[in-house]
Amino acid sequence: MAVALALSERGRGRTGANPNVGCVIVKKGIIVGRGWTQPGGRPHAEEMALAEAGASANGADIYVTMEPCAHESTRGPTCSNAIIDAKPKRVIVATLDADERTRRRGIDRLGDAGITVSVGIREPEARRAMAGFLSRVENARPFVTLKLAMSLDGCIAMADGTSQWITGDRARAHAHLERARSDAILVGAGTAKADKPGLDVRIDGLTDHSPQPVILGNDPEIPDHWLQIAEPAEIAGLADINWLLVEGGATTAASFLQAGLIDRLMLYRAPIIIGGGLPGIGDIGLQKLGDAHGQWRRTDRRELGQDVLEIYEHAA
Amino acid sequence: MAVALALSERGRGRTGANPNVGCVIVKKGIIVGRGWTQPGGRPHAEEMALAEAGASANGADIYVTMEPCAHESTRGPTCSNAIIDAKPKRVIVATLDADERTRRRGIDRLGDAGITVSVGIREPEARRAMAGFLSRVENARPFVTLKLAMSLDGCIAMADGTSQWITGDRARAHAHLERARSDAILVGAGTAKADKPGLDVRIDGLTDHSPQPVILGNDPEIPDHWLQIAEPAEIAGLADINWLLVEGGATTAASFLQAGLIDRLMLYRAPIIIGGGLPGIGDIGLQKLGDAHGQWRRTDRRELGQDVLEIYEHAA
Repeated sequence: MAVALALSERGRGRTGANPNVGCVIVKKGIIVGRGWTQPGGRPHAEEMALAEAGASANGADIYVTMEPCAHESTRGPTCSNAIIDAKPKRVIVATLDADERTRRRGIDRLGDAGITVSVGIREPEARRAMAGFLSRVENARPFVTLKLAMSLDGCIAMADGTSQWITGDRARAHAHLERARSDAILVGAGTAKADKPGLDVRIDGLTDHSPQPVILGNDPEIPDHWLQIAEPAEIAGLADINWLLVEGGATTAASFLQAGLIDRLMLYRAPIIIGGGLPGIGDIGLQKLGDAHGQWRRTDRRELGQDVLEIYEHAA
Repeated sequence: MAVALALSERGRGRTGANPNVGCVIVKKGIIVGRGWTQPGGRPHAEEMALAEAGASANGADIYVTMEPCAHESTRGPTCSNAIIDAKPKRVIVATLDADERTRRRGIDRLGDAGITVSVGIREPEARRAMAGFLSRVENARPFVTLKLAMSLDGCIAMADGTSQWITGDRARAHAHLERARSDAILVGAGTAKADKPGLDVRIDGLTDHSPQPVILGNDPEIPDHWLQIAEPAEIAGLADINWLLVEGGATTAASFLQAGLIDRLMLYRAPIIIGGGLPGIGDIGLQKLGDAHGQWRRTDRRELGQDVLEIYEHAA
């Protein structure tokens, strides 16, 4: 299942309305098929892995990060049917489909066909790996990450707005990789006007993974292909966006935080002191200091050159 | 030497004008004497360890974090003479005395008496452990630590000044321990007026380790036993202060940073977002963002409950 989870990451930020699923088929201890949801959402991970395995899928174990689909689609085969046709011995599922319309139908169909089905293996990791799709189904909005590149004293720029560069090469490359893993990237109108950010992925080989740019607020000068929303809650209307990356500035970050629409913080911190610079997060309407506690828990930390990346997830 | 270094920490913040030295005497693989500089500076570490070892020091190895003293004093015996009288086989020294008036005289005297002397074992750790004394001798001022308790977004208080509490119990206890390891603690007049901080050590058993309070700026209402300085450079005139802890607020932190008088940062960071609160560090006169880089390197990190402590030292 660890391999299937790793494969699921390959599709992240590129699967449209579909979950970024990973799938591995194992026969007699050997991996005979691997798959992940392809760009745009098709083929599904299972379809890709079954194609690779061919006849070897007969009697094999299939590990898949989410319950195989059970509904008909004009876009491709139904995975639970395709699996039944391949005659595996077992199907091991990390988490059920979150969509109540199809939930349990996939595994029930496999079970009815005499295949042994296990559910719940590495479920927390699977929910994290496919959090974008799950958020859209469960919360009717994308999974939202707020990214900040800060100094030790919490500034994202000097008082005059200069912010190039706070973090080093490795941290900036990592941030660009996160862009490639996002369906859309959002900045406020002020940041768009001041920085004119490209919001593209500047990593060789990944430049075609650039996410959909979205702006919060009004700017008549934004390019045609950018989307525009008036307030954070409107992210619910962004079609086919599982993973949304909010990149600033302070007012935008604050408005999303105040609306309770940030699921994850990616805080890149450089070993510098700016002193009297621009803060990363504006007024979020905090009434009592005690209310700020218990909201966030640190789930990852890594050193990127001289900089440190800390990831926090909403505790709720 | 690791044991001697650990013992040296016991004297930290309490040895007056003297270095906080640690000393261990080893005979046939067994520790027969241990010593550290006592409160006020006497007895010295070597004197204490020799007293414990008694006749066992004959033929033993003596590990000491700094070159034994060679100058006469009315306050106690000269350690190099006392060691010669004890007839050890070897003396292992981490670092030479920084004071040019006595430097090398201690080890030369031991060598002349036929004792084998090694110098430089674990010298970087020893210089860090006794950085307060070394700074006074080499830079004519105390070793200065800036301590900040911040939110993830770099705030030390809400916009209305509320700062109780940002960090949790364990981080606050750790900060009080650092107070006990400091000779003096400094706050700005604004912080003194607003918070009326006790600046004492509130840990059972260590309440008598409370450091000398110092205020930067003018406040006619400060208690009699507080010292007062008009600008950061005046810390050079603080007698018998090896370790100075600067606790805020933002203007004071900035004035010390701008004057280049901060050697170490202790950053306690809580997993909370305040948003639009008070920044920890005010304007430090930074002209170019590039100038902020290369100044600080992270030397330690630890988790204290939900909070994280990072320690940075000046890279210069």
